[in-house]
Amino acid sequence: MDQLISELTAALGAGGVITDIDSVAGGWSRVGKPCAILRPRSTNEVSAVLRLAHAAGAPIVPWGGKTGLVDGANAEGQLALSLELMNRVEAVDVEASTLTVQAGCPLQTACEAAEARHLFLPLDLGSRGSATIGGNISTNAGGNRVLRYGMVREMVLGLEAVLADGTVVSAMSPLIKNNTGYDLKQLFIGAEGTLGVVTRATLRLRPQPLSQDVAVLGVERFEQLPRLLRHLEARLGGALSAFEVMWASFHDLVTTAPAKGRPPLDGRYPYYVLVETLGADPAADRARLEAALEAGFAEDLIADAALAGSEAQRQALWALRDDVAQVARNGPIITFDVSLAISAMESYVAELEAVLQTKWPGINLVVFGHLGDGNLHLIVGLPGAEARHPIEEVVYGLLRTRDGSISAEHGIGLQKREFLPLSRSPAEIAVMRTLKAALDPKNILNPGKIFAAA
Amino acid sequence: MDQLISELTAALGAGGVITDIDSVAGGWSRVGKPCAILRPRSTNEVSAVLRLAHAAGAPIVPWGGKTGLVDGANAEGQLALSLELMNRVEAVDVEASTLTVQAGCPLQTACEAAEARHLFLPLDLGSRGSATIGGNISTNAGGNRVLRYGMVREMVLGLEAVLADGTVVSAMSPLIKNNTGYDLKQLFIGAEGTLGVVTRATLRLRPQPLSQDVAVLGVERFEQLPRLLRHLEARLGGALSAFEVMWASFHDLVTTAPAKGRPPLDGRYPYYVLVETLGADPAADRARLEAALEAGFAEDLIADAALAGSEAQRQALWALRDDVAQVARNGPIITFDVSLAISAMESYVAELEAVLQTKWPGINLVVFGHLGDGNLHLIVGLPGAEARHPIEEVVYGLLRTRDGSISAEHGIGLQKREFLPLSRSPAEIAVMRTLKAALDPKNILNPGKIFAAA
Ligand SMILES: Cc1cc2nc3c(=O)[nH]c(=O)nc-3n(C[C@H](O)[C@H](O)[C@H](O)COP(=O)(O)OP(=O)(O)OC[C@H]3O[C@@H](n4cnc5c(N)ncnc54)[C@H](O)[C@@H]3O)c2cc1C
Ligand SMILES: Cc1cc2nc3c(=O)[nH]c(=O)nc-3n(C[C@H](O)[C@H](O)[C@H](O)COP(=O)(O)OP(=O)(O)OC[C@H]3O[C@@H](n4cnc5c(N)ncnc54)[C@H](O)[C@@H]3O)c2cc1C
Repeated sequence: MDQLISELTAALGAGGVITDIDSVAGGWSRVGKPCAILRPRSTNEVSAVLRLAHAAGAPIVPWGGKTGLVDGANAEGQLALSLELMNRVEAVDVEASTLTVQAGCPLQTACEAAEARHLFLPLDLGSRGSATIGGNISTNAGGNRVLRYGMVREMVLGLEAVLADGTVVSAMSPLIKNNTGYDLKQLFIGAEGTLGVVTRATLRLRPQPLSQDVAVLGVERFEQLPRLLRHLEARLGGALSAFEVMWASFHDLVTTAPAKGRPPLDGRYPYYVLVETLGADPAADRARLEAALEAGFAEDLIADAALAGSEAQRQALWALRDDVAQVARNGPIITFDVSLAISAMESYVAELEAVLQTKWPGINLVVFGHLGDGNLHLIVGLPGAEARHPIEEVVYGLLRTRDGSISAEHGIGLQKREFLPLSRSPAEIAVMRTLKAALDPKNILNPGKIFAAA
Repeated sequence: MDQLISELTAALGAGGVITDIDSVAGGWSRVGKPCAILRPRSTNEVSAVLRLAHAAGAPIVPWGGKTGLVDGANAEGQLALSLELMNRVEAVDVEASTLTVQAGCPLQTACEAAEARHLFLPLDLGSRGSATIGGNISTNAGGNRVLRYGMVREMVLGLEAVLADGTVVSAMSPLIKNNTGYDLKQLFIGAEGTLGVVTRATLRLRPQPLSQDVAVLGVERFEQLPRLLRHLEARLGGALSAFEVMWASFHDLVTTAPAKGRPPLDGRYPYYVLVETLGADPAADRARLEAALEAGFAEDLIADAALAGSEAQRQALWALRDDVAQVARNGPIITFDVSLAISAMESYVAELEAVLQTKWPGINLVVFGHLGDGNLHLIVGLPGAEARHPIEEVVYGLLRTRDGSISAEHGIGLQKREFLPLSRSPAEIAVMRTLKAALDPKNILNPGKIFAAA
C-alpha cells in the first residue's frame, strides 16, 4: 500500500492525496475511515489513479457529496476517490438546453447555473447543497418532481466515465436521439460506483417554469387517492409536478409542537395530498388547478382543500412535507424507501402495521411518500437496537408477494445488500455479476457494494 | 444443421418451424432468406430454441414486424426467430397505468388496447400496423412525439428477455422507481437483438389527451427556429407534443401535383413548422396555443400561421408532414436519419448541399425532421447506384466535426455498421464488444449486426 500511495502522490501532486485522516466529516451514512483520500483534478488524473490501483489490485471507493443513505460510499481502510476538486460547471448551452458539468459539481450549483440562464434542472433533493451530480447519477436519484420529469436517468444525455483499468469512456453526446449501438451511459447510472467512476456529464435542461401552484387536499379513503391522481393528471395536461401523500400519522407529527407547522385544513383526514403544478401562465394555470379541484369535489375524490394564495403560503405547505426531521423526535428510527403498485399500498401498510404491532406492541409507524411514483417512505420507531434486523425483515418481506422494490430511490449499497434477492431474481443477480466481472474483472471498484463478489 | 432443425421441431411442435421458404414477405429492408423460421409460442419455447442453438453454435436472428430500416433483421441462410405467435396483450392495469404485452404484439394493437381503457401509449410510428413492441424496444424507436414523451426507452418499465444460452431474465417490475442494482432492461433496449431476445414487456401509459391542436407556421430564417421552439416550450407548459420542421424543398414536394396536399400558407417560406399540442381542456388549450402564436408574431419569430379549425384541417396539416412517399417520386433515393445540435444544423445542411452539388451537379436534397429532438431526415436523389457509398461518406462525414449521430432513430444494423466509428469512439466500441462477449460469448445472437465480431 505504501508503494501505491507514493505512486499516487507522484501522479496527483501536492494536495492530491490526503493520508492524515482523523475522521471524515459530512457522511450521512457510514463512510468509514479510508487509508487515503485521493483528489484528482481531471479525468486524466482519475484515469491515472485507476491504472495504478488496478495494477496493484487495490479497491477504490468513489466519493461524491457523501449524502448517500445506504453506506454506498463506505471506504473503511480503503482508498477513497473524492471528486471534490472536479466541481466545475463547464457549460450551459442555452440553444441546446443542456448543462455540462464535472461529476463533483454540487447539485445546487448546477441548478443555479441553469437558472442564471433562465433554464431549469428539475432534480430536487433535500441534500442539494452537498450531493453531487456524479453521486446523483451513480444513485439514479429521484426527488420531488419525478412524477413530471423522471429520475436522473431521464436527464442524462451524455456521460464520461473511467473504467476500472483506467480506460476513459467518453459518451458525452448531447443529443436526445442517438441510436448508434449500445447506450453505454445506462450502465453507469445507478451503478453506485461499481462499474466506473463518473467524471463528467451533460444533462438535459427544461424551460424555467413561470408559475407554481400548491394545494393540500384532505382525502377520506385510500381508494380515492389513485383516482384523484389520474383525475389530476388528465385535467392538468402535463403541469402536475408533485403528488405527495402524507398519512394522518405524518400530518399529526408535523402539525403539533415542537413542529412549527399548523394543520392546513379544519378537519382531520386519514390522508393529505400535497399537489403542485408548474406552468407558464400564472393566471390560467391557477384557474386550471382550481377547476380540476372543483371537479375533484364534484366527483367525490376530495373532502377538503386549501390552495396557497401567496409565496409564503406555498412555502408553508411544502414546509409540512419537508419537515421530515420530526419523525426522529421521539427517539431512534429506521427509515425505509420502498416502492410498490398503488393498488397494493393500502393492504401493505395495513398488514405492516398489524405485524409490527403484534411483534412490538406500541411501535410507531409513520408513512408518507411520492405516491404518484409508487414510492413510500416508512419510518419505524426502533424499540431497541436488536429489533433493527427483524423489523427490516418484516418491512421487506411483505413486499415480496406484492412485487415491490426494497429501494425506490436510495440504492442498495451495503445496507440492503442482504435483501437484494427479495427484489431481484437469481437470474438477474447473475447477469449483474456477469457485467461486473466483464467491466471490473479485478473487482476494485467499490467492491462488495450492491452484492458481494461471486 | 439438419440435426438442429429436427431438435428444434421436437421442441416447438407442428407449425413451430417453417423450412419451406420461398421468399419472405414484408421486409422493409433486406431480411434475406433464412434456412428456417422458428415460431415459439412462449418464453419457455424461446428459451428452448436458444439452448439448442447455443449448444450447436448456430446464429439466431430475432424477427419482429420486419419494418426495420437498416437490415437489422437480415437472416440470410440463418435461423430466424419470429415472435409472430407471441402477440398477446396480457394486461392493461388502469390503476397502475401500465400495459403488459408479449414482444410480438403489433404496436397498433397495443395502442388500441390502451385506448380501450382510456389510456394512451404515446409511441407513434408510420409502421404501427406491422412493427412490434419487441422490435420497437430492440430499436429504441422514436417517432412523432418524442419531444414530449421520449423514446421507447422512457416507456419501458419492465422487460423479460432470453439470453443467448437460454437463461430467462425476467425484470418485469412495473415500478417507476426501482433502484435495486443494475437496471438490466437498459441493456436490451436498442441492442437490435444482439444481447437477448425480448419476450415480454410492461410499458408505462399516460392519460388519454382530450384536446389536440395543430398549426403550420411559416418562418423566414433558420435562427428563428430554435428560439421559436424555446418560446413554445416555455409558453405551453408541457403541452407541446410535436415541432416538425419542413424545409421549403419538402414543402414544395408535398404541395404540388401529383401530391394531394395544398400550400397551407399564402406566401412561400424557407421553413415550415408543424406544431401540435395535446391537452385536457379543449377551449383553454386552444386559447393558450393562440396566445403563444400571437406572442410569437410579436417577438418576430413567425411570419405567418394557419391554425387548424377542424378535425379535417388537423388531418390535412399532418398529411403534409406524413406524405413522405413524395420524396421518391423523381427516382431512386437514399434516406438518412441523423441527429445533431440545432445550432449546428443550418451550417450542416448548407455545407452538405454545397458538397453534394459540387460532386453531383443537379443532385436533389430534401430536408425535414423532428427538429425539436435534433433529428433530421435527409433524402438524397441517387444519381446512380455507384454513388450510394460516396454520398453516405459525405452525409456522415460532415457530421463528425459537429458531434452528430449517424442514427437518430433507426439504428445501425448492417447498413451503417461501417460508419459506426464516426459516431462512437474506439473506447466505446470496445466496451460494446466487452458487453457482447460477456452476454453472448459464442456470438450467436444476431451476429455481425451493429459491429462485426472482434
Ligand atoms: C437530507 C437528504 C435528503 C435526500 N433526499 C433524497 C431524495 O429525495 N431522493 C433521492 O434519490 N435521494 C435522496 N437522498 C440521498 C442522496 O442525497 C442521493 O443518493 C444522492 O444522489 C447522493 O449523491 P452524493 O454526491 O452525496 O453521493 P455519495 O453519497 O458520495 O455516493 C453515493 C454512491 O455513489 C457513488 N459515487 C459517488 N460519486 C460517484 C462518481 N462520481 N462516480 C461513481 N460513483 C460515485 C458512491 O461510491 C456511493 O456508492 C437524500 C439524502 C439526504 C441526506
Ligand atoms: C413506414 C415506416 C415508418 C417508420 N417510422 C419510424 C419512426 O418514426 N421512428 C422510428 O424509430 N422508426 C421508424 N421506422 C422503423 C421501424 O418501424 C422501427 O425500427 C421499429 O421499431 C421496428 O420494429 P419491428 O417489429 O418491425 O422490428 P424488426 O424490423 O423485425 O427488427 C428490428 C431489429 O430488432 C430486432 N428484434 C426484433 N424483435 C426483437 C425481439 N423480440 N427481441 C430482440 N430483438 C428483436 C431485429 O433482429 C432487428 O435487429 C419506420 C419504418 C417504416 C417502414
